[in-house]
Amino acid sequence: MTPDDFQNGPITITAYDWVPDFAQGFVRDLRLRWALEEASFPYQVEILAQGTQTGPANLARQPFGQIPTLTVGRQTMFESGACAWRIAEASDELLPRGSAERDACFCWLFGALDSLEEPINTVAFLRLFAEDKEAAQKLEGQALAMLRGRLSRLADALGERSFLVADRFTIADLMVTFVLRSAAAADDLDPFPSLKAYVEQHSARPAFRRALEGQMKPFRENATKYEAAA
Amino acid sequence: MTPDDFQNGPITITAYDWVPDFAQGFVRDLRLRWALEEASFPYQVEILAQGTQTGPANLARQPFGQIPTLTVGRQTMFESGACAWRIAEASDELLPRGSAERDACFCWLFGALDSLEEPINTVAFLRLFAEDKEAAQKLEGQALAMLRGRLSRLADALGERSFLVADRFTIADLMVTFVLRSAAAADDLDPFPSLKAYVEQHSARPAFRRALEGQMKPFRENATKYEAAA
Repeated sequence: MTPDDFQNGPITITAYDWVPDFAQGFVRDLRLRWALEEASFPYQVEILAQGTQTGPANLARQPFGQIPTLTVGRQTMFESGACAWRIAEASDELLPRGSAERDACFCWLFGALDSLEEPINTVAFLRLFAEDKEAAQKLEGQALAMLRGRLSRLADALGERSFLVADRFTIADLMVTFVLRSAAAADDLDPFPSLKAYVEQHSARPAFRRALEGQMKPFRENATKYEAAA
Repeated sequence: MTPDDFQNGPITITAYDWVPDFAQGFVRDLRLRWALEEASFPYQVEILAQGTQTGPANLARQPFGQIPTLTVGRQTMFESGACAWRIAEASDELLPRGSAERDACFCWLFGALDSLEEPINTVAFLRLFAEDKEAAQKLEGQALAMLRGRLSRLADALGERSFLVADRFTIADLMVTFVLRSAAAADDLDPFPSLKAYVEQHSARPAFRRALEGQMKPFRENATKYEAAA
């Protein structure tokens, strides 16, 4: 999947027709929507009805039965981190030109997904998904302390800056902002005012607002159907 | 960091002088050692004494105060996923030539780190790191069921094959094998004989055995010092 392929298109991503409230605005197709909006690449969205993601058609392109996928021309990729990087490589809006700065963005992409999102998800598992709420509550403090350790390092690395790399918005800021949004929504960024400001600044970008509205629209349209079934 | 840079060298990674028993053979510098051994790139290892990883010298190159980093010539990268990919790009031993196959390897790299390692680490947190063992035990079944869901999809995607992409060993197999090793060591692959065989096959590769010995050697040499202090 080369930069030229993105110029030729067509570009299609997959997304859900609806998700429960807590996930709305946080589903991972939003990462690709945001990157595509920043890059001004026109794209289509194939909307999957809940339940069909684990059917054979989607499993053939997404081995874990999830969304999103990214199809450009005749090639399809899965994993939002991999797809987001290919979009970034195709656009000057998301990556600087210099090799060292591109490498730094690449490192931060993994930093977002592996060093930051993982402890954020552990806390979210304990708060939202654990069936034994009482047991989960007993572990939350420890998981939160681990998360705060990571956030503290990130705050030190960012310092007073608004951007992680090259003094401009890049795919690094896009992905770090995205994963931090969950922590911000749970008030876990309150001890880190610079990170809170960083998330607020970047999630106010017009491209993000368009991407978010794109994800939310089908959720509104299909709410009645799913809420009636619940 | 280009393929040419790897030819010119020098290549240096960082690793620890010692870690506790449960982590020995699983620290992430092993990912880079393995990739470098497969690629036959000569490399040096800068060994960090425990405790110095969060000092200013290491924080300047690794914002989360961890290992490994990868330095090639004058450029340094962090995050083992990012570093492993750059090594792979520089060697025909780890990536096929075709663009679609390289993209598939890239997707699986993220699949390993984000779709597989995360649930493996959640189970490991509950079993090994949670301070409230009783509470952790109550959540283990649920976390294990989530992990088994992912492993089941992986087993379906792999089928009877030995390799994920292009019918040959690639960075995709290296990283998926690496993250599955923790699950195998905890007997969590027992319900998935094809995955167990996959891990056994790839971790028997001579390059992996050399890499593992490279990680373990300083642990043996420094054991007395740290165990006396414990």
